[in-house]
Amino acid sequence: MSVPTLKQAPINEHTRILGVGAYRPDVVVTNEDVCQWIDSSDEWIRQRTGIITRHRAPADVSVIDMAEGAAREALSKAGIEASQLGAVIVSTVTHPYATPSAAASLADRLGATPAPAFDISAACAGYCYGIAQGDALVRSGTAKYVLVVGAEKLSDVIDNSERTISFLLGDGAGAVVIGPSETPGIGPSVWGSDGSKWDAIGMTHSLLDVREYSAARSGSLVHAGPPQGSALSPEEAAVSDAAIWPTLRQDGQTVFRWAVWEMAKVAQQALDAAGVQAEDLVAFIPHQANMRIIDEMVKKLKLPETVTVARDIAEAGNTSAASIPLATHRLLQEHPGLSGGLALQIGFGAGLVFGAQVVVLP
Amino acid sequence: MSVPTLKQAPINEHTRILGVGAYRPDVVVTNEDVCQWIDSSDEWIRQRTGIITRHRAPADVSVIDMAEGAAREALSKAGIEASQLGAVIVSTVTHPYATPSAAASLADRLGATPAPAFDISAACAGYCYGIAQGDALVRSGTAKYVLVVGAEKLSDVIDNSERTISFLLGDGAGAVVIGPSETPGIGPSVWGSDGSKWDAIGMTHSLLDVREYSAARSGSLVHAGPPQGSALSPEEAAVSDAAIWPTLRQDGQTVFRWAVWEMAKVAQQALDAAGVQAEDLVAFIPHQANMRIIDEMVKKLKLPETVTVARDIAEAGNTSAASIPLATHRLLQEHPGLSGGLALQIGFGAGLVFGAQVVVLP
Repeated sequence: MSVPTLKQAPINEHTRILGVGAYRPDVVVTNEDVCQWIDSSDEWIRQRTGIITRHRAPADVSVIDMAEGAAREALSKAGIEASQLGAVIVSTVTHPYATPSAAASLADRLGATPAPAFDISAACAGYCYGIAQGDALVRSGTAKYVLVVGAEKLSDVIDNSERTISFLLGDGAGAVVIGPSETPGIGPSVWGSDGSKWDAIGMTHSLLDVREYSAARSGSLVHAGPPQGSALSPEEAAVSDAAIWPTLRQDGQTVFRWAVWEMAKVAQQALDAAGVQAEDLVAFIPHQANMRIIDEMVKKLKLPETVTVARDIAEAGNTSAASIPLATHRLLQEHPGLSGGLALQIGFGAGLVFGAQVVVLP
Repeated sequence: MSVPTLKQAPINEHTRILGVGAYRPDVVVTNEDVCQWIDSSDEWIRQRTGIITRHRAPADVSVIDMAEGAAREALSKAGIEASQLGAVIVSTVTHPYATPSAAASLADRLGATPAPAFDISAACAGYCYGIAQGDALVRSGTAKYVLVVGAEKLSDVIDNSERTISFLLGDGAGAVVIGPSETPGIGPSVWGSDGSKWDAIGMTHSLLDVREYSAARSGSLVHAGPPQGSALSPEEAAVSDAAIWPTLRQDGQTVFRWAVWEMAKVAQQALDAAGVQAEDLVAFIPHQANMRIIDEMVKKLKLPETVTVARDIAEAGNTSAASIPLATHRLLQEHPGLSGGLALQIGFGAGLVFGAQVVVLP
């Protein structure tokens, strides 16, 4: 039997970011607040991290709520109706349901139905991973317009008394719309992973640990059925309940060294892949992990003083997948003249994973 | 200042699936086993669902372990080295860590580092969503070869005494490698969502409910910090621990009707988009949700008897994102002559989300 020739979707040659939106939740957590929970000082925190405040969301504001706020502004700025979206991508690690995705609910709220909608898990590289995918979906003709959102409610997965990462983290959401373009607006994505450092940033416990504790405490196997390994003894379960809630922690030294040494190389590769020099940039928008990492990267990349560096971390803290679009949004608010110029963006985080692109600012 | 012209990545015109792999865990759960946990019978389960057995993984086999097994076979069948992969995508809703992703660990185990690696959350449509993305990444030149894995350990997120969905579900993983092709091998993706039915399939509780219970039980707020809403009262927390573990449930009627009526239309759209007729197919590989849904779709699509229909569900149960690649793997083992022919695949599930493509079987 002869196989009929399949049609494949047509191609868009170029793409660009059409608009950016932000959602910053109301609760402001100061370094003074932090020092109630860990033994530290405002001065130490500022010196070591550059963070002065972080925003956190109250209990009644969800990841989806924040994503919606950012997405509505991005659509409006882009001049695109939700009904024109060909895909809705939410980068998040803090949506508190295994399934369904945050994106499916977001698409419904925005009126983007029946656009495909899915969440991606790539931690603090999640926004740049989303841009890589959105760019590919548009260029391959799979979608015409793609909404990429980074949204995190990190306050749900931290323990304020934990010292390695919790005090750095904030909540928020940023969003962009990607669409076809007459001229190139998104350079090649330099993205990757190094799973040999999978343990460098992550959760203190598996959700299965929580389930086993819960079962042991209640004296019954929740997980009735075929043998699944023995539940913890009541003695083990008697350990403080609080201790078994999975929270984020990191090996700060490993992450800092990797970020400073390896990420500067990745950033340079993104410049090379796009065929531009540091001098061609108007802005540098790294993931807002730590001001010292930002400073080191600026030095290693030998960025001239004409390049505006995003330092949203001072006010917003580290918001994981949301940090780059939030920082982009602020940059364009404070320096509207940067619009149309080239920005180098780079995300990196748990996995370890990383992603970088040169983009034309909307 | 004049903006330099960005390079964008080159284009591959066509793509295809190069190889498929499967991992089926050892523990076989029979309908007799199920009837120890819910009041039912082997006959009722067979008649209503077509399921005779499902495979489940023991405690020491993780989502990543299963993904690795399937991925190694897919790479071997495709004749591709892990080091050639330009992206590693794992579709899963059962990886038990908020972060890092399963994919980052998988990429490391396979030797695919530094390939980008991320998980996607699109439930039982996750495999077809992964194909849509992998196809776009290769066609847009963002990656040359992409590994797409559907891997689920659903036994970790079910309660065997729950009647709406748990008895249908199995564990497993399936994987494919997508690469460039001289001729079209993956038709346009017809994919989408209907978040107005977000509640039709999902978890009984948010992870935040678990955290609040935990805090209330231990008499302390885990989540010290800014006001986060009041924790549950000790009385509320005194409710059985087992009851607050988030497990899957569905509104079976809503899902069944949606699957039968709406998904047949989506499947037809995928045929139309690819420019082929039902008569051109050698195989139909729907998500293995329920044998009755499969039968209804076959009728509605008026598939001729020359089309081999995947019915892996009888032995494997519903394995969510893993079901289509697992069923494809079995079909090719049992009918090697189908290789090179056209198959229509369609996934659908929690979100609600759906995705369909016509593909050339590897």
